[in-house]
Amino acid sequence: MLNFPNKKVLSTKQNTIKSNHSNRGMSLENMINNSCEYYLYNNIANIHKKPTPIQVVKVDYPSRSSTKIIEAYYKTPSTTDYNGIYKGKYIDFEAKETNIKNYLGFEYIHHHQITHLENIVKHGGIGFLIIYFKHYDEVYLYDFNDFILLYNKRNDINGKKSIAYTEVKENGILIKRNYIPNLEIIKAIDEKYFT
Amino acid sequence: MLNFPNKKVLSTKQNTIKSNHSNRGMSLENMINNSCEYYLYNNIANIHKKPTPIQVVKVDYPSRSSTKIIEAYYKTPSTTDYNGIYKGKYIDFEAKETNIKNYLGFEYIHHHQITHLENIVKHGGIGFLIIYFKHYDEVYLYDFNDFILLYNKRNDINGKKSIAYTEVKENGILIKRNYIPNLEIIKAIDEKYFT
Repeated sequence: MLNFPNKKVLSTKQNTIKSNHSNRGMSLENMINNSCEYYLYNNIANIHKKPTPIQVVKVDYPSRSSTKIIEAYYKTPSTTDYNGIYKGKYIDFEAKETNIKNYLGFEYIHHHQITHLENIVKHGGIGFLIIYFKHYDEVYLYDFNDFILLYNKRNDINGKKSIAYTEVKENGILIKRNYIPNLEIIKAIDEKYFT
Repeated sequence: MLNFPNKKVLSTKQNTIKSNHSNRGMSLENMINNSCEYYLYNNIANIHKKPTPIQVVKVDYPSRSSTKIIEAYYKTPSTTDYNGIYKGKYIDFEAKETNIKNYLGFEYIHHHQITHLENIVKHGGIGFLIIYFKHYDEVYLYDFNDFILLYNKRNDINGKKSIAYTEVKENGILIKRNYIPNLEIIKAIDEKYFT
């Protein structure tokens, strides 16, 4: 757990550093993780990244108290990467980043993640994607209900199914950057779901 | 995904097999997992076990398309094992089984899991423990708010802090056994939180 300074100090730092894009180059995952840690620490929300599922095949016991995994393989996740709770609501999202300037290809979003988010929304949860267009250094929250409409009727663009940057910009919520948290995810959630 | 038969067939099977305790000897984790799978498949709830967190240190690439993990270690989980959504509510629980007849020692419940559940309940989620007393072959749902009261004021029993079987039996909800799902977790949740 990082030892975050109190909020007063934060807001000063935020003003100084905001325009520098000091977290440029940081991976989307790192930005989300440290933002979630900030929200957890400040009792704002409880959202966690799920561990990557790994199939352990063989272990070794170099000492009585330690277990060393010596053969294991990555498994395909059956859900999205992130879930949790905010203001009593179940929150679920998948994060995707792309170097491509104009679109995010649907091939980067696993079918079972789509199915999972559909199911979550049916059960009354809040589901969305966080999409990072690295070329513009812009991160968006894109509501899953909006996404699935596109996803289901989309014809090919550049030979692939995809969502355009312009569509994300138009219908998504720009997630503001900050010093702490790196991504103002909760502000974006408030804007989309709690106003 | 198991191909579950329809509910009509189920209820017949259930009557036949119920008294046999056919899932006796099955691990608590397996019983919970196949119950969650049933709830997911039948659109009743969306609850998943989180993967065990593993720190990957070294990987090998035996072929272009495959990654083999050759050195890794188990990490301490920062949350509980299970979470999800049911009737629009965020659900979070930890599952513990014990061979000891009369109590469950608190040492089996990690402090950060307690902290996590406290936080979840503060945010408006439903938090509980599932406790399996193997000696009696009985599984209980024990509400976290009830648990934390005991946990915070409990004096030692047998030199250890623990919750007695009789307390779990008195204040917990007995989770009924079945053929499919193995554990009627949702019925127990309904009884405790939705009546």
